Amino acid sequence: MNQTIETILNHRSIRSFTDQLLTDEEIRLLVESAQCASTSSYIQAYSIIGVTDQGKKRELAALAGNQPYVEKNGHLFVFCADLYRHDKVARDRGEDVKAALEGTETFMVSVIDAALAAQNMAVAAESMGLGICYIGGIRNDLDKVAEILKTPEYVLPLFGFVVGHPANPSAKKPRLPLEHIYHENTYNLDEQDFHKHLSEYDETISSYYQNRTGGKRTDKWTEQITQHLKEPKRTYMNQFVKEKGFNKR
Amino acid sequence: MNQTIETILNHRSIRSFTDQLLTDEEIRLLVESAQCASTSSYIQAYSIIGVTDQGKKRELAALAGNQPYVEKNGHLFVFCADLYRHDKVARDRGEDVKAALEGTETFMVSVIDAALAAQNMAVAAESMGLGICYIGGIRNDLDKVAEILKTPEYVLPLFGFVVGHPANPSAKKPRLPLEHIYHENTYNLDEQDFHKHLSEYDETISSYYQNRTGGKRTDKWTEQITQHLKEPKRTYMNQFVKEKGFNKR
Repeated sequence: MNQTIETILNHRSIRSFTDQLLTDEEIRLLVESAQCASTSSYIQAYSIIGVTDQGKKRELAALAGNQPYVEKNGHLFVFCADLYRHDKVARDRGEDVKAALEGTETFMVSVIDAALAAQNMAVAAESMGLGICYIGGIRNDLDKVAEILKTPEYVLPLFGFVVGHPANPSAKKPRLPLEHIYHENTYNLDEQDFHKHLSEYDETISSYYQNRTGGKRTDKWTEQITQHLKEPKRTYMNQFVKEKGFNKR
Repeated sequence: MNQTIETILNHRSIRSFTDQLLTDEEIRLLVESAQCASTSSYIQAYSIIGVTDQGKKRELAALAGNQPYVEKNGHLFVFCADLYRHDKVARDRGEDVKAALEGTETFMVSVIDAALAAQNMAVAAESMGLGICYIGGIRNDLDKVAEILKTPEYVLPLFGFVVGHPANPSAKKPRLPLEHIYHENTYNLDEQDFHKHLSEYDETISSYYQNRTGGKRTDKWTEQITQHLKEPKRTYMNQFVKEKGFNKR
């Protein structure tokens, strides 16, 4: 197994960083790495906003659910789906491409483009000995995020991404059984397999929590996920993305 | 610069493979690598379908625009946004979580989850000396794809992904200037910067094509992108994803 795969298999989210900031050189290398990811039809439909202003970081941390590591880290990036440049480029050439930009297809393309770029950055950062954590919490209030970062129409902040020098180690969280995620030729709808995979996984997760909390937590994945999904979250999203020009038709 | 970052910076899509198939061990290692990517709130909202059946590969190649490398490669994966297991797990526990599953927020979460997993697989594959290419072309006809792969409700095929031993090298395609993708603290709306970045980039791209085609092609990025977006593509997508249970509210 090579070093890159070792890095990938060793991933865990880091939520506690030292005070050491990333250097400009490190930031550039991370952004370059992100940019080298594949992009659908060369469209490059994303932007990355680095947040260094301490006031803005504090505001973003507050709205992301008061996660201290959004404020204290080596660097905070915000990844955005971005079709602003495409709209502008086309208008400059006398063309109206709104019908394409506003479709669900292009919405998906831009979200995928941004995510591919982000994951390249994640692997690059971890290969440098840095820790990372995705911050979905910024989607709690994207209106406010857009205001803080002054993003125009056709730009949709998707998630934050913190990087830094890890202060505390964290444990690797077990994933669903490979057989459950991976199908061959057709999607496996076998009921027995389904229940076998998930009850095995529930046991794994339950003992993972038991070990980590000295027996205080014993929750299963199926419990956790059901609980998580019981109350729909961020129900403003459907309307919001449309207001920003995405996913309208 | 470490080996992982070298691999990432050296990415280029490979569209021509030898006949050598991936081994089962390689496939497992790639899927494990994919699974180690971050996942929003531990939701793991994706599945990966490996396609080995030659008839199915041919059908997928045909609908993806007759790209021969969709049929001839070391392995073909299809990445899907997947909330099927979450719906089923909740129902088994006597809960109805449809309101959460069908929201645009969860749609975005599942698309991002799948993309992060895929990009981990891309970096892992390239670190092993394999080549990869994303196949957005399967979105030409997802109804047919869903039929071929027998995916149920709450499963949305997003893109194909071919891996294999490269038969022909390909060139690295230059990305937008870093300064254009990367903003600091606020989104840069400066008109002069915008035009400077894009005219620089247009020159880069123009000479890239000139060099590769012996002067036959000289198109600029702004031309290409405008052309690409002039005719909206895959306009069925808005309706289709809803029919599959995603992005409905």
